[in-house]
Amino acid sequence: MNQATEQGTLFVISAPSGAGKTSLVSEMLRNDSRLGVSISHTTRAMREGEQDGVNYHFVSRDSFEAMIARGDFLEHADVFGNYYGTSQVWVRETLAKGQDVILEIDWQGAQQVRRLMPDCVGIFIVPPSAEILRERLTGRGTDAPEVVERRLLEAREECRHAVEFDYLVVNDVFENALTDLLAIVRSQRLSMNRQRNRHGELLSGLMAAD
Amino acid sequence: MNQATEQGTLFVISAPSGAGKTSLVSEMLRNDSRLGVSISHTTRAMREGEQDGVNYHFVSRDSFEAMIARGDFLEHADVFGNYYGTSQVWVRETLAKGQDVILEIDWQGAQQVRRLMPDCVGIFIVPPSAEILRERLTGRGTDAPEVVERRLLEAREECRHAVEFDYLVVNDVFENALTDLLAIVRSQRLSMNRQRNRHGELLSGLMAAD
Repeated sequence: MNQATEQGTLFVISAPSGAGKTSLVSEMLRNDSRLGVSISHTTRAMREGEQDGVNYHFVSRDSFEAMIARGDFLEHADVFGNYYGTSQVWVRETLAKGQDVILEIDWQGAQQVRRLMPDCVGIFIVPPSAEILRERLTGRGTDAPEVVERRLLEAREECRHAVEFDYLVVNDVFENALTDLLAIVRSQRLSMNRQRNRHGELLSGLMAAD
Repeated sequence: MNQATEQGTLFVISAPSGAGKTSLVSEMLRNDSRLGVSISHTTRAMREGEQDGVNYHFVSRDSFEAMIARGDFLEHADVFGNYYGTSQVWVRETLAKGQDVILEIDWQGAQQVRRLMPDCVGIFIVPPSAEILRERLTGRGTDAPEVVERRLLEAREECRHAVEFDYLVVNDVFENALTDLLAIVRSQRLSMNRQRNRHGELLSGLMAAD
């Protein structure tokens, strides 16, 4: 087999908000050119500074529902009246090119993806303590108490699903957590399943009598 | 659970001779203080410059056979009339302390270890091409042709078992291969099974309502 047949790996990364997931993922992408991140589709309104096709693919409810009906999504959710979803076509095509793909989704999306793509690798990121999580979610004290309370409840719910993932990274020192994440990605590429495709000829050559 | 109950990971590293395994493993040990390497028992004579308990535990045939009878070995082999073996007691005790252990053994030893300790992580190292392997094993042309031929046969036989391992590392550029090996070790420590022991309290705290 040659490089063209090599499949990329799908990494599903989840975390409670306040764990630093987004910053870590963007540093992963900067450090590793063989990683791509899936851009979600959403029906929510574009915010100032956002760009279609960069932050999200912004689509209408009708388009989104047509995509659901066609089975276009690997996972999707209705969050407070707005749809969010991950395109199955884009993910499968990108993996088929041998590129690795990161999905930043929550535990519910992760469960949907795991059912459709059981070979995906799940990584859960947590902050170093419950106190730090609380501080980060409380913010500068400018948010309404019920908003903070909802964030905390969601964060706890998210953490209850941590054990469904393959790896746990504690984001205490940012650089260490980044090294952890990059080590997980690197080691997946070294798994025998992927390497025997990539280095099939080398292995045959080493085994052959001459 | 606390750190005292954390189990180390057993890494079984095999390679055809000429792949650079020994140099890579000694660099791994220098780079990672949480890694230990098992020192084999052997009945072969001590060579100049070797030290008992450093290169090998040198024991008599009677002692070795008594150890076999007691089931002391995780794996052992009779190589051209000399016994070689890995102490099961030492490995299990070291893992129980939470330390990771490397075994440098051949594919036959690896098969024995896998049966007794199915959670071990197997890594196979190969040279970057069959030509380079041949060059390295041919040496400086001072060895008898039949010695070279036997080395090549053994190397090919070893490579036929590569696919029984979990990871494949190609030792093309030494530093890259070393980084690969360290990434595999690091990522194993991040697996949910190990992390949920190490960070059980953190996870409980994050999940708990307060």
